[in-house]
Amino acid sequence: MGAISEDDLIARFFAPIAGPGALGLKDDAACLTPPPGCDLILTKDALVAGVHFFAADPPDGIARKALRVNLSDLAAKGADPLGFLLALALPVGVETGWIEAFARGLGEDAARWGIPLLGGDTVKTPGPAMVSLTALGTAPTGHMVPRTGVRAGDLIFVSGTIGDSALGLQVRLAPERFAAVASGFRILLLSRYLTPEPRLALAPVLRAHASAGMDISDGLVGDVTKMLKASGVSAIIRLCDAPLSDAAKAAIAMEPALFETAMTGGDDYELLVAASPQKAKVLQEDARAAGVPLKLIGEAVAGAGPPRFIGADGADMTFARGSFSHF
Amino acid sequence: MGAISEDDLIARFFAPIAGPGALGLKDDAACLTPPPGCDLILTKDALVAGVHFFAADPPDGIARKALRVNLSDLAAKGADPLGFLLALALPVGVETGWIEAFARGLGEDAARWGIPLLGGDTVKTPGPAMVSLTALGTAPTGHMVPRTGVRAGDLIFVSGTIGDSALGLQVRLAPERFAAVASGFRILLLSRYLTPEPRLALAPVLRAHASAGMDISDGLVGDVTKMLKASGVSAIIRLCDAPLSDAAKAAIAMEPALFETAMTGGDDYELLVAASPQKAKVLQEDARAAGVPLKLIGEAVAGAGPPRFIGADGADMTFARGSFSHF
Repeated sequence: MGAISEDDLIARFFAPIAGPGALGLKDDAACLTPPPGCDLILTKDALVAGVHFFAADPPDGIARKALRVNLSDLAAKGADPLGFLLALALPVGVETGWIEAFARGLGEDAARWGIPLLGGDTVKTPGPAMVSLTALGTAPTGHMVPRTGVRAGDLIFVSGTIGDSALGLQVRLAPERFAAVASGFRILLLSRYLTPEPRLALAPVLRAHASAGMDISDGLVGDVTKMLKASGVSAIIRLCDAPLSDAAKAAIAMEPALFETAMTGGDDYELLVAASPQKAKVLQEDARAAGVPLKLIGEAVAGAGPPRFIGADGADMTFARGSFSHF
Repeated sequence: MGAISEDDLIARFFAPIAGPGALGLKDDAACLTPPPGCDLILTKDALVAGVHFFAADPPDGIARKALRVNLSDLAAKGADPLGFLLALALPVGVETGWIEAFARGLGEDAARWGIPLLGGDTVKTPGPAMVSLTALGTAPTGHMVPRTGVRAGDLIFVSGTIGDSALGLQVRLAPERFAAVASGFRILLLSRYLTPEPRLALAPVLRAHASAGMDISDGLVGDVTKMLKASGVSAIIRLCDAPLSDAAKAAIAMEPALFETAMTGGDDYELLVAASPQKAKVLQEDARAAGVPLKLIGEAVAGAGPPRFIGADGADMTFARGSFSHF
């Protein structure tokens, strides 16, 4: 990258996108007066080149994805964005243009989602690029939406559409396999993989009406299993009712086995939400009003076993590998 | 590492050292009610194997260092520890025992310094291990100690001793070069490199009396230059008065050029503090009472140029490379 110092790099690319508490990124730490009457909601997701994204992905897209997967966690907890810190490990020899594009994407997304950069660290690495991001949000004291709150009888919903990102990854890995799918659909699936849409519009809806929430990062099947286990209940989940985009439907029509990929593949960053039957109607109405519909996919039932999954043909489905596991 | 899942890894090694806000590390996010009347002080330092530590270093020591370098930033800002989040990138094939030892060191240090683990992320990497840590602290509202607060006439102090860590790194890299230094001294220098001592005891002293502060991570010469530049003043810095350990003195006596290494090498994690002449006496008294003496090394003067450094022989010193730079 030449002779640019860490300080110059920060001053040139990151200080312009920093928020007020960041002190111009010139101090050792950020300083933030927390809003009164709120809890802090804290989340941290790290992404590694070659694992969570491709090293050749556009750098602005890598930045957007790193921020958005953390925003997705805030949304699932019913939290509004407050600020974020970033650690960026740059491979030896990275181009200045790469960093510039990364910072541009990060800054645009930070502005769009109203979450200022507060601080961070930039280091070099002999290995692949890595982005580690800590996001801070706020929720009225005691009102974070927990993962553990599902009760027997609760209805279970998901936002948006499921499986696009997992199918987009397959398009990326083996485009020839999807030659029979219309190119507009392929592009949609790819873009859903590269650039998830954090459902922050649902945060106030969830904290008003949901008994539990989590974001789907490791696949619907695995994540709903986790949420139910954490809550000590079971469920009947109708995967046949999982919302699919037209693009996902086209891919699955071509190759029905991709339905399982869609249900287990991960990287959806949609929200999984539980609510009591009494609150279900207003939850769905408010979600629709917020522009992100929630679709009913199941019902929690008493019991500690894994959920029962009903597939597209009405028959039970079982999964050898319910979700993406890192080790 | 075998078939351990990320969830099992977290439940087995990290959940036992998590604090109350961490929700057992079973949720997507941590939840913390910030103490009233306080600002949040936020800092993030990342460490990469092969850059900031040796891949073969003891894993518990790597964890301690990652936590302590962040605690050092909190101390410099006059902040008390509140909690931390951890992203850990583990190389493919890492042993379970490595993770266990890492978590043990982290847990011991978290308990010692009173800073609970709140959350984080564990990912695999095809590259070297990386630890990215975000530490949260608190200071009474408006009382964070800034880097930018040095005024002309302020006296400038450093805590502890300077250069041990930089010399310890040299011992690590070329032990034969230090054969003439007593083995007890070599061990001390090495341990100061591996395990910095965050000066949290000074946090309340700094916020009571200091006009500016920062921690010395990139070398005394470079960091004092940064603090003065950020404050818009210059200084006369008597490196001849910089506190040296007996071990550092022995190494420098053997090879006088190591004095420059000690002054510029970095990884000290001592505090650099400015205070008005009126507050200097009580600052030093309170620091001594807190068990971490502050030594006077210079005085800020009006002007925007780089500081004047006076060496051991009373002559001015200049430095080609004032501090460690990452790029």
